[in-house]
This record gives sequence, structure tokens and C-alpha cells, in this order.
Amino acid sequence: MIILGIDPGLQITGFGILKKEGNKTFLLDYGFLKMSPTKSLPERIGIFHAFIQEKIITYKITDLALETPFLGKNSQNFLKLGYLRGILYLLANTHTLLLHEFSPREIKASLTGFGGADKAQVARVVLQLFPTLTMPNKLDVTDALAITLCGLWKTKNPYLLQIH
Amino acid sequence: MIILGIDPGLQITGFGILKKEGNKTFLLDYGFLKMSPTKSLPERIGIFHAFIQEKIITYKITDLALETPFLGKNSQNFLKLGYLRGILYLLANTHTLLLHEFSPREIKASLTGFGGADKAQVARVVLQLFPTLTMPNKLDVTDALAITLCGLWKTKNPYLLQIH
Repeated sequence: MIILGIDPGLQITGFGILKKEGNKTFLLDYGFLKMSPTKSLPERIGIFHAFIQEKIITYKITDLALETPFLGKNSQNFLKLGYLRGILYLLANTHTLLLHEFSPREIKASLTGFGGADKAQVARVVLQLFPTLTMPNKLDVTDALAITLCGLWKTKNPYLLQIH
Repeated sequence: MIILGIDPGLQITGFGILKKEGNKTFLLDYGFLKMSPTKSLPERIGIFHAFIQEKIITYKITDLALETPFLGKNSQNFLKLGYLRGILYLLANTHTLLLHEFSPREIKASLTGFGGADKAQVARVVLQLFPTLTMPNKLDVTDALAITLCGLWKTKNPYLLQIH
């Protein structure tokens, strides 16, 4: 199982890639994609699609982990997140990936034991598990790795076939 | 100029394709894509992508017209519309289409002269322009053709390069 966890955003997208072999877990890749707001929306969607597809092919990804979105104060941001999620669903379909989605509470609880934990607390657990992780924008990456880890630990119910 | 107008939906997507040559306008194709709700979300996104891409290639589409979405009562529907729009932006980028977006009021005003017109009023104008149009689900198609016509008539400001 090789799982890609993504925390998508039109400005910054964090990602983490983990491989499970027996009892061992390997951190294959992690990082983020930063897109310039001077580019048009179709251009950025194209860059996002190409970037994620390249990771899927390079690492022979089998599973995709995402966080379920929630409607915040800004409905336009919610819609833009929808654009990126549409691309991820398309890639899941094209490359036959098993899809796992978790609520923010599930992810936090799975890492820290507490669903109401804050970003810093989640980051501390991720950094404890991967002490070699070095990254200028650590929080973008630790969030994505938290999603990836949650997907790795809760793989019994992939819901590629769940009806929406 | 060959313009594709789309009214996307996870259940029914209406579309119309018009070609402008000098002063003449030709109706090249119209119809709808119906997707079974028993299929998974990634599958439906994949079907939607393949269907629209096939139209773009077959008819050598140069322009894409869409209606700007608005947040209704159901935020989940708004998010799902975002998935489909993400796919359309990707296709606009892949096939270098000029993108035109109009508010529902702009579209209605451009067809009927009145921004507050209802669906049936818009449909009457579309059917007057295309009297040969036969279709079981007329309203799905007339809505899409209204978007296409609006795109055809207001082509001076394509905003492929507009910053979001």
C-alpha cells in the first residue's frame, strides 16, 4: 500500500507519501506545491493536476487520503476547494486509487487521541514520528502527513464505491 | 468561433454547441448527460470529464461558456458543483479554450431583456431561435443553450487571464 495524503489549496497544497510493507512504514516523499495568484484559475488547475498526477505515477500510488471539507465563512473558498477536489476525484478514477476521507476531528483524534487538538499539537506528533522532516513551511506539510497517517491507520474502509 | 455552453450537474448536465461564421450562427449539437446516482463520485467525475472532452475534440471547440454559481441552501450541492467546475477549468487549460462566465441575471437579461426572467421565459426565447430543437428534457437543454448564446453574443471580454 502506497498512500498519498493531500491538503489541497489554490495557494499552497501540502502532500505526504507513505509506504506500508508488513509492519514497516516508509516516508517516500513530502512537501508542498505553491501556486502564484498571478496565474489564471484554469492555469493553476492545470498545474495542480500535472503535479499530483506526476506523484501518483512516480510513486505508484494505490490509495488517496483526504480531509472532508467544511463550509467556513467564505463560500468562495469552499467552491475553490471544490475545484481541486474535483481534480483529485478525476485522478482517483483515472488511476484506480482507493479513496479515503476523514473529518478533521477523526484525523486529529487518530494522531493525538483528541479530536479537538490544534494544528501545533498535530504537528508535534507528526514530527515525533518523522524526526528527519525538514521543511520551511512545516505546518502545511505536517497537516498533509497527518491526513496520510490517518489513511494508513484506518484502511479497512476505503470507500471508492460509496454513493454520494 | 465554436462555443460550448455547459450547465453542469452530478445528475444532469445540459450542453449546447454553437458555431459563428460571419453573421451566421449554426447549432452544431445539444443534449444532456445523465449520470446514475448509483455510481461512485470518482466514477461520475471520470464520465463527466470523458464526455465533455469528447465534445471539445469532436467539434474543435474554441470557447467555453459557464454560469457563475451561487451558494444556495445546500452547501454540499455547491461543493459538488465545484468538483465539476474544476474539471471544466482543467479542460479549458488542456485545450486552451477561452473561458466566459456570466451571472444568471446577465444570461437572462441577454436573452429576454429582463434579468429576473424565469426558466420558462428563457426557454421560450431559445425555442424561438432554434425551432427544430426536440428533446425530452427541454429545460435542461434550453438553460445550457441560453448560456451558450450569451457567450456567443458577449465575446468581447473572455477572461482566461482574469485573476481569481
